[in-house]
Amino acid sequence: MSGPTADLRSDTLTRPTAGMRRTMADAEVGDDVYGEDPTVNALEERVADLLGTEAALFTPTGSMANQLGVRAHAGPGQEIIGDHLAHVLRAEMGAAAQLSGITSRTWIAERGQLDVDTVKQVMSVGAGTYQVGTSCVVVENTHNFGGGTVQPLDRMQSLRELTRSAGIAVHLDGARLWNAHAASGVPLQEYAACADTVAVCLSKGLGAPVGSLLAGSAAVVEEARAWRKRFGGGMRQVGILAAAGSYALDHHLDRLSEDHRRTRLVAEALAEAAPDVVDPRWVHTNILVLDVGAAGWTAADFSAAAREAGVLGYPTDASHVRFVWHLDVDDAMTEHARSTLVGLVTAH
Amino acid sequence: MSGPTADLRSDTLTRPTAGMRRTMADAEVGDDVYGEDPTVNALEERVADLLGTEAALFTPTGSMANQLGVRAHAGPGQEIIGDHLAHVLRAEMGAAAQLSGITSRTWIAERGQLDVDTVKQVMSVGAGTYQVGTSCVVVENTHNFGGGTVQPLDRMQSLRELTRSAGIAVHLDGARLWNAHAASGVPLQEYAACADTVAVCLSKGLGAPVGSLLAGSAAVVEEARAWRKRFGGGMRQVGILAAAGSYALDHHLDRLSEDHRRTRLVAEALAEAAPDVVDPRWVHTNILVLDVGAAGWTAADFSAAAREAGVLGYPTDASHVRFVWHLDVDDAMTEHARSTLVGLVTAH
Amino acid sequence: MSGPTADLRSDTLTRPTAGMRRTMADAEVGDDVYGEDPTVNALEERVADLLGTEAALFTPTGSMANQLGVRAHAGPGQEIIGDHLAHVLRAEMGAAAQLSGITSRTWIAERGQLDVDTVKQVMSVGAGTYQVGTSCVVVENTHNFGGGTVQPLDRMQSLRELTRSAGIAVHLDGARLWNAHAASGVPLQEYAACADTVAVCLSKGLGAPVGSLLAGSAAVVEEARAWRKRFGGGMRQVGILAAAGSYALDHHLDRLSEDHRRTRLVAEALAEAAPDVVDPRWVHTNILVLDVGAAGWTAADFSAAAREAGVLGYPTDASHVRFVWHLDVDDAMTEHARSTLVGLVTAH
Amino acid sequence: MSGPTADLRSDTLTRPTAGMRRTMADAEVGDDVYGEDPTVNALEERVADLLGTEAALFTPTGSMANQLGVRAHAGPGQEIIGDHLAHVLRAEMGAAAQLSGITSRTWIAERGQLDVDTVKQVMSVGAGTYQVGTSCVVVENTHNFGGGTVQPLDRMQSLRELTRSAGIAVHLDGARLWNAHAASGVPLQEYAACADTVAVCLSKGLGAPVGSLLAGSAAVVEEARAWRKRFGGGMRQVGILAAAGSYALDHHLDRLSEDHRRTRLVAEALAEAAPDVVDPRWVHTNILVLDVGAAGWTAADFSAAAREAGVLGYPTDASHVRFVWHLDVDDAMTEHARSTLVGLVTAH
Repeated sequence: MSGPTADLRSDTLTRPTAGMRRTMADAEVGDDVYGEDPTVNALEERVADLLGTEAALFTPTGSMANQLGVRAHAGPGQEIIGDHLAHVLRAEMGAAAQLSGITSRTWIAERGQLDVDTVKQVMSVGAGTYQVGTSCVVVENTHNFGGGTVQPLDRMQSLRELTRSAGIAVHLDGARLWNAHAASGVPLQEYAACADTVAVCLSKGLGAPVGSLLAGSAAVVEEARAWRKRFGGGMRQVGILAAAGSYALDHHLDRLSEDHRRTRLVAEALAEAAPDVVDPRWVHTNILVLDVGAAGWTAADFSAAAREAGVLGYPTDASHVRFVWHLDVDDAMTEHARSTLVGLVTAH
Repeated sequence: MSGPTADLRSDTLTRPTAGMRRTMADAEVGDDVYGEDPTVNALEERVADLLGTEAALFTPTGSMANQLGVRAHAGPGQEIIGDHLAHVLRAEMGAAAQLSGITSRTWIAERGQLDVDTVKQVMSVGAGTYQVGTSCVVVENTHNFGGGTVQPLDRMQSLRELTRSAGIAVHLDGARLWNAHAASGVPLQEYAACADTVAVCLSKGLGAPVGSLLAGSAAVVEEARAWRKRFGGGMRQVGILAAAGSYALDHHLDRLSEDHRRTRLVAEALAEAAPDVVDPRWVHTNILVLDVGAAGWTAADFSAAAREAGVLGYPTDASHVRFVWHLDVDDAMTEHARSTLVGLVTAH
Repeated sequence: MSGPTADLRSDTLTRPTAGMRRTMADAEVGDDVYGEDPTVNALEERVADLLGTEAALFTPTGSMANQLGVRAHAGPGQEIIGDHLAHVLRAEMGAAAQLSGITSRTWIAERGQLDVDTVKQVMSVGAGTYQVGTSCVVVENTHNFGGGTVQPLDRMQSLRELTRSAGIAVHLDGARLWNAHAASGVPLQEYAACADTVAVCLSKGLGAPVGSLLAGSAAVVEEARAWRKRFGGGMRQVGILAAAGSYALDHHLDRLSEDHRRTRLVAEALAEAAPDVVDPRWVHTNILVLDVGAAGWTAADFSAAAREAGVLGYPTDASHVRFVWHLDVDDAMTEHARSTLVGLVTAH
Repeated sequence: MSGPTADLRSDTLTRPTAGMRRTMADAEVGDDVYGEDPTVNALEERVADLLGTEAALFTPTGSMANQLGVRAHAGPGQEIIGDHLAHVLRAEMGAAAQLSGITSRTWIAERGQLDVDTVKQVMSVGAGTYQVGTSCVVVENTHNFGGGTVQPLDRMQSLRELTRSAGIAVHLDGARLWNAHAASGVPLQEYAACADTVAVCLSKGLGAPVGSLLAGSAAVVEEARAWRKRFGGGMRQVGILAAAGSYALDHHLDRLSEDHRRTRLVAEALAEAAPDVVDPRWVHTNILVLDVGAAGWTAADFSAAAREAGVLGYPTDASHVRFVWHLDVDDAMTEHARSTLVGLVTAH
């Protein structure tokens, strides 16, 4: 099973290409805290246009974009809700509570899929003086811990209707919204129209080294700009990074379907070899989560054996290992990953 | 349907009796911030003995007792989990996040009943540097928004085993643990043995005017004493209030079964008249939640009509109204409530 | 130097009198979370009238009253300022930052005396998007760590003018405003007119066992009522405690000048015996701070020696010991304190 | 007064040079959240070596480096102290309170100069259970709002002794420590030895586009790494930015004395023309603060007039305007600034 090493631990691992590096080196810059960096200003406008929002704001990380988003909708002692594996609530180190005093409640969701009836059951409206009403619902699309699953547009639209009438905001954690768009063909603006704020990430599938954006109304973005400073995210000559993001939108958005094709190819090979390990119907984009427990492995042993063979994955719990396709993974690596993983899931 | 007014909105409404007032007026007191109030010291020891813990601490409210309990187990950016209607997470105004920076996740529970498999699914152990591990599970017994339901002892014991091996604490919100004990016959100490900290309340069914206690290890109570000061709960001559609590334990603990008998009597009458409105198997203690929607009412209209007839309840959402029995509700009021409510649920 | 024990550690030590206890035992009560306790409602109105504000709110402690006051004026990431020994900033365990995310700056003040030029130098107005503007100035009258000193009314009035034009609020920590009023003859309403919110305490010189109030506009008090619940201060049949407060206003307000007279008597005797130990011009009310270092003592040794002789004080730092007069200290105890302390300051 | 535009608003305005851009474009990178970016790892080691600490951590901004530093020493409800114009306490939007629940007290300092007796007076040691003891003293060197003043080394050493014996930490905000070193000749390690944590900035005088570092013990840096993620500062291919920092240390550290020379030249010319406007003895480094009020100007009018003539400054309050020298300001711009500003201060 020898072959080229395939580092599939995460799509955050992508390295800037030569072209992207040239663009960064040539970028015109200024002091972004003063609002004077033309490259970041241009990128913020471009992303706002792509998503159909009034404005957007560059942030050093996706977590900061999300935390500025929920902060825009909920203050201290107020509530956000989402599924129990939503990145905002599960994987940002309790930042909403720690940084903003925001409380949260969650529900268990099958593969992270949005279910509007469940939202309706959990959300609290007109709670009176002595109870916390829900201020914001968080939706993640694609859903990372759900296995890169795409949220059905009609469900997001139903959520939008439900929450609008209840006076509740929606924050869309779209770190991988580009992948949802590539897989479903739904225009980015249609997804974004279902939310008040949208966070998108440049440093995952798109391959930029650093950066995310929070998009929303001009008022929300204005307020988020001040909170970004308080959170320690007010950087200076950001155009260097924004240039990479702009390059990524030019060159790497359309190729995401390549990542999806490769992921699906491996998923189908594995499902044929070991049907309990993966259900290809739930492999929507560039993330492949294997139930290696169903093949008699612990996640730790499985990922160690795969790593030995040059295929790097990430154990997400005691019996699951995640593999993620991205810019730096080609067909040869994919083939190597396929044969290695098929070998392992049929080994016991 | 005329008869004596029955104020069943909550068991927090109880007023101190003449005997309780005399005890308060005669109480020996000192400055409790200096630890010099003999009456509060005696009550703290008594409650610790009742629950089998090393120590206990008087607090002005049940919310503060709960918030000191979870604060003992989770710091800023750490996580507590519980069902989505747990009082700590639903009805204390986001205090854990606001006051302590604690993040939370929840699950939907049928009538608030603890399900250990669900806890196991949600809790996060060994989450690594960049994710929040679960620090504490909150259990409420009896469960207020679940309809005063009693938690099965064996489930609490299973939770204790599960969490102990995972290094996770358990906080028991026992505001109405007295009612659970009265209904199930399970000794208070057996419930308390399933938790690291226990909050109990003197001002609900027991009928004291003010006060709760947090019980736990000597170290936890020592730390909670300092945090009580920070939360603004370090009162002075507290013996006046502690005396009422002590009187309540002497005189009002044994009579809780009276409240349960009256609640059940009305529940069964209503179930006979309108089976969809209430299932008496879930009426465990002194709380009766009616699904008035099933009888063609909105909660607002139903409670208005009941109030008109002198029976006061509390609408908990658009289609449910809650009635709570307590010290100040006698057989005549109960009979009046029975006939009034039966009339209303069969009116449409 | 034998004589009756004089416990002068603090005026929080006062115990309710027989008359106060009778009033408490007879108080009409209701559930104050529902706003239905007639005795607490009456006390809140009475204190609002006394201070000339629209409304007032009962709280379990003075710290909570202060913290609700500053919370009314400053949100998370906003700033309050005051002298470096102000109780709010020095002695409430960092509650403003911990509970409300409020930042603070201070200045060094001679005996806690307000100096408006210093406020002007420190306060920040029109600070722009990226700096925090000052939201609230805290003034303490009388000033506890300043030695019970009274703030000159004209300085408070100048502060009111300065801050009003700058759009900055003033919170008056009037835990011992009763003493300031008794010493200076300035009407309570004139002091209160210099502030947006006023906290007053019932359990210090006035001798009630528990309770403070926050007074201010109807809107501020309404908001503070909800935050009181979040802070864990929403108690139930509070009328028991409010009755004591009402009794204290009837019977103990006028006698505060007795405490002042006794304090001054001892101060003058000590100044005569050891002029470096105390300057009577700064003994304005019921607090006497001795610089025992100037008499060759450490604070620890001095208070141990005084305690041995039945005179209890409180060391405030390595070389100062504080003695506080109150309701439970009579002329005989005062004489005993005088002779004991004079003996000690002249012993080395 | 025509001449080349001199943008002296801040040294954060510097733009990366051609050489720096080439280095960035060629940088080897990896995912820094996984600790796999060789360029950032090398920079962190280099800065730790420069400062003589065990470790260092790259952060997106100086504010985040400072906030991680104070967070390492003080938890929620604990206290940091510093002068009332320290950047940490005055210019980071209340982040210590908002993000970490840290309370603060300050004192007024002449031109930001450290005075150890004042620290001793304000700091609180052995404060007992119910008061907050001081956890950390913040020192800023050079002091921004003090006018770029250098802290005397012997005072920093006295502070180190005082705080060490008291068990209090010191955080050195060294955003411009490079300037202090260049002006005083004191080795960086000697300054750093006076503190437990040191924040240094790459994007001010050194001219890198983005980035600061927090240096300290291995344990503190390890903990700060996790908190950086919570604060939203865990970026990915950071080597692009770290390469610029490394280049800046190679090429721009030694030239800081050029900035200082130019600043002093203008300061002396102005002092000769209008002695009340600036005292050159307090112009230590690259910052020039003019008391334009002393020349009959408001800060707003003065900076508008200077801007008109192509000299951009920053009004710091109603009567002061700040001018800062940096990498992008040459001798010709300096001469233009000199003649312009001399003209303005002598105009009225």
